[in-house]
Amino acid sequence: MLPPVAGVRLATAACDIRYRGRTDACLIEVAPGSSVAGVLTKSKTAGAPVEWCRAALSWGSARAFVINAGNANAFTGGAGKASVERTVDAVAALYDCPRHDVYIASTGVIGEPLPDEKVTAALGGLMDDLAPDAWEQAARAIMTTDTFPKLATRSATIDGCPVTINGIAKGSGMIAPDMATMLAFVFTDAAIPAELLEKLLRPAVDQSFNAITVDGDTSTSDTLLLCATGQADHAAILSQRDPALRSFKAALGDLLRDLAQQVVRDGEGAQKFITIRVSGAASKQAARRIGLAIGNSPLVKTALGAGDANWGRIVMAVGKSGERAERDLLAIRIGGIEIARRGAVVPGYDEAPVARHMKGREIDVEVDVGVKNGRATVWTCDLSHGYVSINADYRS
Amino acid sequence: MLPPVAGVRLATAACDIRYRGRTDACLIEVAPGSSVAGVLTKSKTAGAPVEWCRAALSWGSARAFVINAGNANAFTGGAGKASVERTVDAVAALYDCPRHDVYIASTGVIGEPLPDEKVTAALGGLMDDLAPDAWEQAARAIMTTDTFPKLATRSATIDGCPVTINGIAKGSGMIAPDMATMLAFVFTDAAIPAELLEKLLRPAVDQSFNAITVDGDTSTSDTLLLCATGQADHAAILSQRDPALRSFKAALGDLLRDLAQQVVRDGEGAQKFITIRVSGAASKQAARRIGLAIGNSPLVKTALGAGDANWGRIVMAVGKSGERAERDLLAIRIGGIEIARRGAVVPGYDEAPVARHMKGREIDVEVDVGVKNGRATVWTCDLSHGYVSINADYRS
Repeated sequence: MLPPVAGVRLATAACDIRYRGRTDACLIEVAPGSSVAGVLTKSKTAGAPVEWCRAALSWGSARAFVINAGNANAFTGGAGKASVERTVDAVAALYDCPRHDVYIASTGVIGEPLPDEKVTAALGGLMDDLAPDAWEQAARAIMTTDTFPKLATRSATIDGCPVTINGIAKGSGMIAPDMATMLAFVFTDAAIPAELLEKLLRPAVDQSFNAITVDGDTSTSDTLLLCATGQADHAAILSQRDPALRSFKAALGDLLRDLAQQVVRDGEGAQKFITIRVSGAASKQAARRIGLAIGNSPLVKTALGAGDANWGRIVMAVGKSGERAERDLLAIRIGGIEIARRGAVVPGYDEAPVARHMKGREIDVEVDVGVKNGRATVWTCDLSHGYVSINADYRS
Repeated sequence: MLPPVAGVRLATAACDIRYRGRTDACLIEVAPGSSVAGVLTKSKTAGAPVEWCRAALSWGSARAFVINAGNANAFTGGAGKASVERTVDAVAALYDCPRHDVYIASTGVIGEPLPDEKVTAALGGLMDDLAPDAWEQAARAIMTTDTFPKLATRSATIDGCPVTINGIAKGSGMIAPDMATMLAFVFTDAAIPAELLEKLLRPAVDQSFNAITVDGDTSTSDTLLLCATGQADHAAILSQRDPALRSFKAALGDLLRDLAQQVVRDGEGAQKFITIRVSGAASKQAARRIGLAIGNSPLVKTALGAGDANWGRIVMAVGKSGERAERDLLAIRIGGIEIARRGAVVPGYDEAPVARHMKGREIDVEVDVGVKNGRATVWTCDLSHGYVSINADYRS
């Protein structure tokens, strides 16, 4: 169970948006004066809630978050925008706060109008139910094809003062980097202004949500918000290089990596959790792109899922990444066992121990491309019959 | 059955490279003085045969082609290169021709040494068996996971003189654009110098093999060679803009499109042939990239395969392409039926006729992104349980 975060209360409700017999909406209230930063999808067809958040984030303050599952309110035209505005108006009136202190996120089917009246009708009850310990309930209410709720907590100290960071996330399909996952909300009682939060968030996202991929598909709705209630009693932070932030930065990075990895572990149909470590690339970015080319390759993902050490497909994926690689210096390890070095299979290569490693649920792939010192780690899952079944049947 | 092409003879053999009880090697002999042009994979981990062809193509002349299935001779280091050279030496000796007149192509498993001695041992028998009508046999001998041989023929006239173009191809996995498919060999009796052949080939490939995708995976071995034996008795061609080439160009484009579409129809596990027409893009290239983002999206491909008109995923794919799209002008048709216009579902949209269209084996998707006049067509197939099964079991 997650500990409370001073200044944060949560509540959930069953609004019947799409699912029956489960919660599908969530209200998260934060103390007045809370700051917020965020990372949103780069999709050119972003949903109406994403556009709302993008505009609101320029203010940097927050009072309430309303999240629903079952309908993404994306590609819903003017109706979608009006729907977001009605919800924002209702929440702002209840809290007597500026409209830009209200954040909206929606996840689910694209292209169908969101019955926002079901959410606004539930707001009164949600406010009555607010509690500081409803983290797991909130994580459950925002699930779509997820099979388990995703939560994480970390503690840190700022200037000797203990602070807490709690996060919830959802997502298991349409997961690819260059954005947050579909939805993630992270709260801390630290007192950090929005501008600084943003500077702490970007690099941490880069090493977590931007390093995972399930299917290479970028959602219209990806939203990651980091909110600081400022209830902790530490000295003011003046810059992101303040040494007092060291513990907080490490904890934030660790928490985001934990949430991002939970998303991959719950990848649609996933049976294997795959860690891909690329070294020897021309740069960190090149290493990341090579890692993602491997992690997004349907041929690699089906082979790894079947426990087949078909490392030839890893070579193929390195080649298609378009990044510099010295074919004749390429080295590959799976499960720590050297398979290829100097661009060819090692003499006397024995597949048996590799096959044993691949029977497990965690597969480690290491690739050195022999160019320079660029390194990156990417996490992904396998491509299974389960993925096809889930996505062939999603709407039916 | 394909007609003969003057100056071309073919033979096949069962060399036991990987498969048992089927042919897996093919020799194609062309008359002395034949010219050749080609398009090869852009993979940074290209196989040894591809590197050989790349070097040989600068000479532009051909006498023999040796192709094997079952082993790609890729990522085989110095041994792979030596293996190609031994085969080239053997063929050049038999034909008493320069080494650069011999072309080698290999397809199959990556990373295992090719037992080239099995191929060279068969060369004598192959030469004895050469016949002008063995096109289908050749197309069969180069298959890997293909379920049917891929052949096409077209006739054209150059300056009143009839010419023939025959092509064979193979490939059903690791198919993505920016290259030829895994292997395609096209022969004509036209008399066209290599430099000109190359100029005719590039644009035709752009509208055929570079417009298809099965799984977005780029092979280490993609090779498309176009060879002209010069046996037809027409006036010399001096430039690619020569009006005498009009009929030939059209026939070549048509034949390559036919072969490329056959590859998609035989995409691993494919049950649907999907045509994606993109219009209204910022440029032709932008339209192609949007089409490929749709055609490579696992979420779109699983939905279409299941006959689910989940057009929200098409919107998602447009968004992730990174190309300019006016979200609020986006229009989508499936099977000619308007689903969305001006960025939202059409009023009173009835899914029934769309669902009927999607029950068929051919699915037509049209997307207008509302920016400018860029257009492109992309062909792909669905992502099915069959794809996962084939690729989970390929080596076992």
